[in-house]
Amino acid sequence: MSAQPDHTARRALAQSISVVERGGAPADALIASALEHLRQAPPGAQPLVIGITGAPGVGKSSLVSALSDQARTQELRVAVLAVDPSSAATGGALLGDRVRIDERPDDAGRFVRSLATRGSGRALARAAAAASLLLEAAGFSLVFVETVGAGQADLGIARLADLVVLVEGPEGGDEVQAMKAGLLEAADLVVVNKGDRPGADAAAERLRSGLALGATPVPVLVTSALDARGVPELLQQIIAMGASRTADGRIRRIAAHLVARAEGRLAERIATADGDGTLATLARSVSEGEMPLTGAAETLLGDGRSA
Amino acid sequence: MSAQPDHTARRALAQSISVVERGGAPADALIASALEHLRQAPPGAQPLVIGITGAPGVGKSSLVSALSDQARTQELRVAVLAVDPSSAATGGALLGDRVRIDERPDDAGRFVRSLATRGSGRALARAAAAASLLLEAAGFSLVFVETVGAGQADLGIARLADLVVLVEGPEGGDEVQAMKAGLLEAADLVVVNKGDRPGADAAAERLRSGLALGATPVPVLVTSALDARGVPELLQQIIAMGASRTADGRIRRIAAHLVARAEGRLAERIATADGDGTLATLARSVSEGEMPLTGAAETLLGDGRSA
Repeated sequence: MSAQPDHTARRALAQSISVVERGGAPADALIASALEHLRQAPPGAQPLVIGITGAPGVGKSSLVSALSDQARTQELRVAVLAVDPSSAATGGALLGDRVRIDERPDDAGRFVRSLATRGSGRALARAAAAASLLLEAAGFSLVFVETVGAGQADLGIARLADLVVLVEGPEGGDEVQAMKAGLLEAADLVVVNKGDRPGADAAAERLRSGLALGATPVPVLVTSALDARGVPELLQQIIAMGASRTADGRIRRIAAHLVARAEGRLAERIATADGDGTLATLARSVSEGEMPLTGAAETLLGDGRSA
Repeated sequence: MSAQPDHTARRALAQSISVVERGGAPADALIASALEHLRQAPPGAQPLVIGITGAPGVGKSSLVSALSDQARTQELRVAVLAVDPSSAATGGALLGDRVRIDERPDDAGRFVRSLATRGSGRALARAAAAASLLLEAAGFSLVFVETVGAGQADLGIARLADLVVLVEGPEGGDEVQAMKAGLLEAADLVVVNKGDRPGADAAAERLRSGLALGATPVPVLVTSALDARGVPELLQQIIAMGASRTADGRIRRIAAHLVARAEGRLAERIATADGDGTLATLARSVSEGEMPLTGAAETLLGDGRSA
């Protein structure tokens, strides 16, 4: 584990993450330099990267905060990336300022950062993967990547994380939404939070029987972030499950970054073709029977072989 | 408007849609034949394709049903595509059988069909665009495409539809979720459904003031699918707004299909690279400093220029 960063190092890390959020050549230079640093460093344990997902309002932030407190009692260095898929049009302004406050600025073993882009979920997935590599180079051993359980960003998180934890509320119905969004199947671990409220145990039971249909049994735990009930057990379970999964974590995070980049580049191509009329021209050729569908789709993808 | 289809024609249409759901060469042949039919047909009004989106439980299906009843009183031929992003792993079985029942099988002017694939949201967007072209060739003048407001399928629907209607429930909180998912910005029209319940007018007011921040004013209507209150006004508004938007609808639907195909092909490439170890090899080259990030992402995208 590297030396405890001081305030200057924390500020530098925060600025580096801003650079990878924006992307482009400066971001690539920072990622390359983090990878260079990791190649030079003595081989050590890779960090455990935990995706925390779930619908808005289930208490993900409080749970991550409680898990961080618990991890600090074990001297683990903890970073939190809160991924907020702000909408392209408003930059999230409609929701008010959701930038997370770093509650314990004097604890050098804890680092909290919101990630938001005005771009797509892909841009967020790209930035989150890059940021996780910077956090690894900075010597953090636990990285929580918290996302609202909706949309494309979560798909990237499943690629990026060593372990995905789905957080549910105690009320019925949330689990149906989670199933619809396909979140439940991506989860390695399910947590029913707000366990102090009535219905939590029943919700856990429903989830257990629902999940019993799947191929691999998924543990369902009950927590209450309010009084930290179940939190030590959850962290223990996360670390136990993560231990067998971290072998290729760094490679997987680079791969997640590459996938998000490739998808982002296609999205850019489509947006360009949309804007300059190429897409409409292709569609018109298909409509007129002058071009087959396959050829037109390949042209759009950039293969160009059938153009 | 073409002749009223009899039971045989309806069955053939249903089977054709099953073929485009599965994709591949038979699907392409059917789409090409629908486009050929449309080229031969006398030029007429293109159908109005309306995307209906919103969170689960807001009453989208009942509202679409009420809108269809209303449209039938005006002799408009109506089709409904209910797009269900069933999860890849379970085929939606966890949710039970959600295949929509065609409630009025004897009304030849009404056609109802569920679309579901075991594939991705992109596969659904591809199938929905193709199905809308088949429905146009079959002479329907109103096509409702109903999706749950989550995930990638909706992005495709915005591309495909002439008009996107976001349905909200009367309870507070839904609008925040809709904003988070970026649904509100894609909407041309917002409907607060279940207007018989308390809070509906207040929710409409909150939405109006939230939407006032945007560039274009978005109308907010209140309906009650239960007693059809507000439904005639909503249909009138939809038709009025759609009238100015249908000019390039067919081209746009072909374009939506092409975009979904290109994205789907990239997803296949990534899945292949994931499965055969190419992706991990690329990531390892980046990790070792042997390949720049840009080159690796381009290789994955299939450009091959930097491989």
